[in-house]
Amino acid sequence: MEHIIVIGAGIAGLTAASALEKKGFSVTVLEKKDHPGGNVSSWDRLFPEGRQAGDVLSHAGSELEKTDVLTGVSVESVEKRDGRFVAELSSGDSVTGDAVLLASGFSLFDAHLKEEYGYGIYDNVFTNADLEAMFSAGKVSGKSGQAPKRVAFVHCVGSRDEKIGNRYCSKVCCATAVKQASEVKQLYPDAEVFCFYMDLRMYDLAFEDMYFNAQTLYGVRFVRGRLCEAAEGIDKRVVLKVEDTLAGQTMNLSVDMLVLMSGMTAPSDTARIAGMLGVKTNKEGFLQPEDVYLGRNISSAPGVFLAGTCTGPKTIPETVADARAACEAIVAYLGEKRVKTTAKAI
Amino acid sequence: MEHIIVIGAGIAGLTAASALEKKGFSVTVLEKKDHPGGNVSSWDRLFPEGRQAGDVLSHAGSELEKTDVLTGVSVESVEKRDGRFVAELSSGDSVTGDAVLLASGFSLFDAHLKEEYGYGIYDNVFTNADLEAMFSAGKVSGKSGQAPKRVAFVHCVGSRDEKIGNRYCSKVCCATAVKQASEVKQLYPDAEVFCFYMDLRMYDLAFEDMYFNAQTLYGVRFVRGRLCEAAEGIDKRVVLKVEDTLAGQTMNLSVDMLVLMSGMTAPSDTARIAGMLGVKTNKEGFLQPEDVYLGRNISSAPGVFLAGTCTGPKTIPETVADARAACEAIVAYLGEKRVKTTAKAI
Repeated sequence: MEHIIVIGAGIAGLTAASALEKKGFSVTVLEKKDHPGGNVSSWDRLFPEGRQAGDVLSHAGSELEKTDVLTGVSVESVEKRDGRFVAELSSGDSVTGDAVLLASGFSLFDAHLKEEYGYGIYDNVFTNADLEAMFSAGKVSGKSGQAPKRVAFVHCVGSRDEKIGNRYCSKVCCATAVKQASEVKQLYPDAEVFCFYMDLRMYDLAFEDMYFNAQTLYGVRFVRGRLCEAAEGIDKRVVLKVEDTLAGQTMNLSVDMLVLMSGMTAPSDTARIAGMLGVKTNKEGFLQPEDVYLGRNISSAPGVFLAGTCTGPKTIPETVADARAACEAIVAYLGEKRVKTTAKAI
Repeated sequence: MEHIIVIGAGIAGLTAASALEKKGFSVTVLEKKDHPGGNVSSWDRLFPEGRQAGDVLSHAGSELEKTDVLTGVSVESVEKRDGRFVAELSSGDSVTGDAVLLASGFSLFDAHLKEEYGYGIYDNVFTNADLEAMFSAGKVSGKSGQAPKRVAFVHCVGSRDEKIGNRYCSKVCCATAVKQASEVKQLYPDAEVFCFYMDLRMYDLAFEDMYFNAQTLYGVRFVRGRLCEAAEGIDKRVVLKVEDTLAGQTMNLSVDMLVLMSGMTAPSDTARIAGMLGVKTNKEGFLQPEDVYLGRNISSAPGVFLAGTCTGPKTIPETVADARAACEAIVAYLGEKRVKTTAKAI
């Protein structure tokens, strides 16, 4: 059976590898980081149902029996030779495959770039990822270690932001903010929790229920408006000035924790690898499918397939379905290739 | 090779059938309506790129060579007998398969139910589907046949509406409204075109560009607010009272055409068929996947799979990926079944 090279051991890569292995293919998964799991591995619980990220991840990858998952290796070069793909790795090894699946995921937007929000400057400004680490550690608080009395979430950090160069929506931050805000209220029922949003993009079937519960069950306060300024007070609280676009007035408030909902961006390395394979990127830096309607998993380069957030922001269920669809496309491609090879031989 | 019964010949069913056929399976597609294509077949152009729906549909289904697509038949009963599924059809025929794929899609929300908007009562109230039919026919106008001078789109008709019993978002109406409003402005550059929305859910990679272009290139006016009242004037124009929630004031305006963005609902027939197969529905009436994170295409009934909008609102690219993922799940299931059967035989 043919061999497939999967680049990226996040939930997309692991799901696809598992599906391919079950169909009898041999698979090598290449992961730049020193552990598999991608971005999901740094999350605590996942919307919409609050399942543990580790649980979801272990199910996705648990069925790998024969697949090699090589961590801590990067792809130095990859090219097509005589109809097969040869990847040279940073470890000095090389892998040869009949198809390549790019499942290189996303990078969280670097919140330092929104300097005006004070991330890395003020003590009590955090990202959604920082908060997940606190949830995992079982201790949510600002730098003082005290239980927070007031927490603010700012949606669309690095997303829908022409100034930063990202016009697109990151698709998962609203639901993540609603989840995290609800979790903070569950931990600290007396805390005031605010979400500052532009449009609440709770588009999936279970999302409106999450939003409804956040308001009615947990008492999260949703304010349509954009954060204008963040400053640090003498007491190290973060002083916010927010334009409430519904009330038509400016809100000034101090919070113990400011949480920035960093969006999804295309990792720079993806474009480098894609470039060597002749796969195009779009203006947002994500990989461009051959056909946005019918072939989201098929790239413009024959034998190179795409899965997950490397083609743009996606939720986890969507990423899993996308990875399975990519597997289907790979199996179809290899099947056709086999028919052609047999025909030639005859 | 095994035989698969696909229920529904919309884009999900056709995509899955095509993928299954390519893998050597024989497939029967059952369609209640008298033609294949589902809801997509009544659409003119599709967001985000404006591709013709017919083109997308023909690509999805064009590769069917050996698959039987039976139209105008409904499933009278379906049950599992000796590990296989037997469906009795309204035509008097029966089909036996080794797996069933439910791809029964959605029904457009019946706009008559929002009586206060006057659909079916006033002359110049239309749905998104009616407007698509006008686009296809090449003539967009109210009942008078005159070029419209002012057109209003109302988002979230039958969606996010507790009164009507649908709390969920239909996921595609915002993008459809932006597309349709832009198209109307392209046809009638001098017309005033308004979109009345609650939250603009332009979450996909290309959606913000569509929204940006609608505003800057076409001059569509987006107003955050809900339609309070619609009445018919003596001149047959529709008189609207809208609460502009950003400006904090009430807007009164007469329009030549009022377009209602009807959302997606679960077809009643889906629950009936699912019930016979032991597949659960959720509170919204859509089919419930076994695992919302990892197994959106797998139902709680072994051998029964799910694809497309029967599990909830989806865009077309998402539906296509979902159908391919369902195909992958079916192939895996049948492969495992074969191994078990062989093991038993030995």
